[in-house]
Parts: sequence; structure tokens; C-alpha cells
Amino acid sequence: MEEMRDRKIVVAVDESEESMYALSWCLSNLNVHDPNTTLVLLYVKPPPPAYSSLDATGFLFPDELLATMEKYSKKLVDSVMHKAEAIYRDFGVAVKVEKKVGRGDAKDVICATVNKLGVDILVMGTHGYGFFKRALLGSVSEYCSKHVKCPVLVVKHPKNK
Amino acid sequence: MEEMRDRKIVVAVDESEESMYALSWCLSNLNVHDPNTTLVLLYVKPPPPAYSSLDATGFLFPDELLATMEKYSKKLVDSVMHKAEAIYRDFGVAVKVEKKVGRGDAKDVICATVNKLGVDILVMGTHGYGFFKRALLGSVSEYCSKHVKCPVLVVKHPKNK
Repeated sequence: MEEMRDRKIVVAVDESEESMYALSWCLSNLNVHDPNTTLVLLYVKPPPPAYSSLDATGFLFPDELLATMEKYSKKLVDSVMHKAEAIYRDFGVAVKVEKKVGRGDAKDVICATVNKLGVDILVMGTHGYGFFKRALLGSVSEYCSKHVKCPVLVVKHPKNK
Repeated sequence: MEEMRDRKIVVAVDESEESMYALSWCLSNLNVHDPNTTLVLLYVKPPPPAYSSLDATGFLFPDELLATMEKYSKKLVDSVMHKAEAIYRDFGVAVKVEKKVGRGDAKDVICATVNKLGVDILVMGTHGYGFFKRALLGSVSEYCSKHVKCPVLVVKHPKNK
């Protein structure tokens, strides 16, 4: 009775425990082992430091610092994706997974990606924000619920209940 | 690999097409035919007319009018539940369904019921509001996302995309 068409589930992942919990919840509850389902892990890197705010002080980030930050940011992506992999491998069921890394304001990138991909459901945690102190994810999930075309599932971490 | 524990999915239903669409979406995507899953249809009747606002004008609703409204409200519940039944019967798969009717402010009743029942997921449409012009459901779904302990799935009707 299940439809046999392809299904895309996007999980917005970041450094937070909340987003990893959302991924686990999704694995246990959303029929992800269906061969027609692809799980897309979407990580959004924060934008590089804004130069405009630096004009005022006359201060410029040295190239070296920018390079170090970029390197750190790459390591962060790897670390998040590895954590995510561990979770879906532990789940014990073969899942078709795609990884996507965007850059920019998390809420805008998530909405744009989800709408472009023609996604069936967007899964997000709440209150996840990482080392870069990105905009409060509480409001990111609210923003995405409004601006995304597909159903949005917001999963709360038990510790935030 | 699926967990065998009981699962409760609450779908907030009302007169709106949006909520019926959310119910259909849920039937196609959330594994509701699992024998351990119960689908709870929750309808919230608006509170009876507020007497406090009538004090100012000195106007009182005649009992007859109140009785008529109550009768109409009961018919509305039946009509919504019948529409919902038609949808899950059409789906062609046996689903364990419970129906619950609450009364009061939709957002408060939904949150209280969901938290009391120990629900696994709350499914809601957006922008549903019925003949009684209840508070905008857009904000009801936002409110519930914040105040409910379980994951919340907000399903947009394609016409609102």
C-alpha cells in the first residue's frame, strides 16, 4: 500500500546534541530503510567573518587567521558528519545517505536547499547552535517552518522538554 | 529492527482542508499501519461565548441561542470526524484510531492533551481555522512546537506553499 516513488528526507545537522538526537529520532520513526528513501544530511557552515564590520575599526583579519578558521571549519564539518555516520551505522539498517554542505546564514541556506531539492520532509532539532554561535536555532526552526514548502518536523531533545 | 513498543501519533483535526491534508500526509508517510501504532484524532471545540465581554453591554445570549450553538458545535465535530474517517478508510490499510474531543483554546488544549497522553508525535496543518474563527492556526502550530514535549510535524497544504 506504500507509495513507491522516491522520497527525500533532509536532516539539518550541526555540532549540537539536539540535531544528532533529531537524526536518531528520524531513523527510528520515519521508515528510512525504504529503498526509495534518501536521507540527506545538510550541514551549513557559517559565513566567513563580515568585512563590513571591520571597516569601522580599521582592523583586518590576517590571512593566516582566516586560513586557520577555514581549516577549523572544515574539521568541524568532518566531525559532525562522522558523528552522524556513527548514528546511522549503529541503527543497523542500510540507509541511502547523501551529504550536503552549504555556507551562509543557516536558515536561508536550509530553506533554499530544501525548496530546490523538492524534499518530502525537513527534520530539525531545536536550540542547536555551534561553536560559531550562529543565530539561535530555536528561531531557525520557526523560520524554516514558515519558509519551506514541505512538511517540517521539529524534534526536541529530551533534556529540553 | 523497528522498535516494537506502542506509538501514539496525534493529529489535530478541525474543519480546515489543511488539517485533512495533514492527516493524509501522515497516513502516507508515518508507518501508521504498524499494529503498535495508534492514531489519535484530536478535535478542539471552541469555548462557549465569553460572558465577561457581555457584561459591558448588558447583553446576554438567550438560552435558546446557546443551545442552538451547542447543537451546531456537536454537528461540526461529527462532520470533521466523518471527513477524517473517510480519509483513513480510503487509505485502505487498517489503522488503530482513537478520537478525542476537547474544549477550550485550541493551542492550550492540544498542548495539554499531547503532554498528558505521552505522545510520540504531534501532526498539525497550518493556517487552519474554522467557522468559529479560532485563533490563527499559524500561530497555534508555532505555540505548540514550543510547548509540547514531543516532536511536532507541521504539514503545509500544497495550496499554501
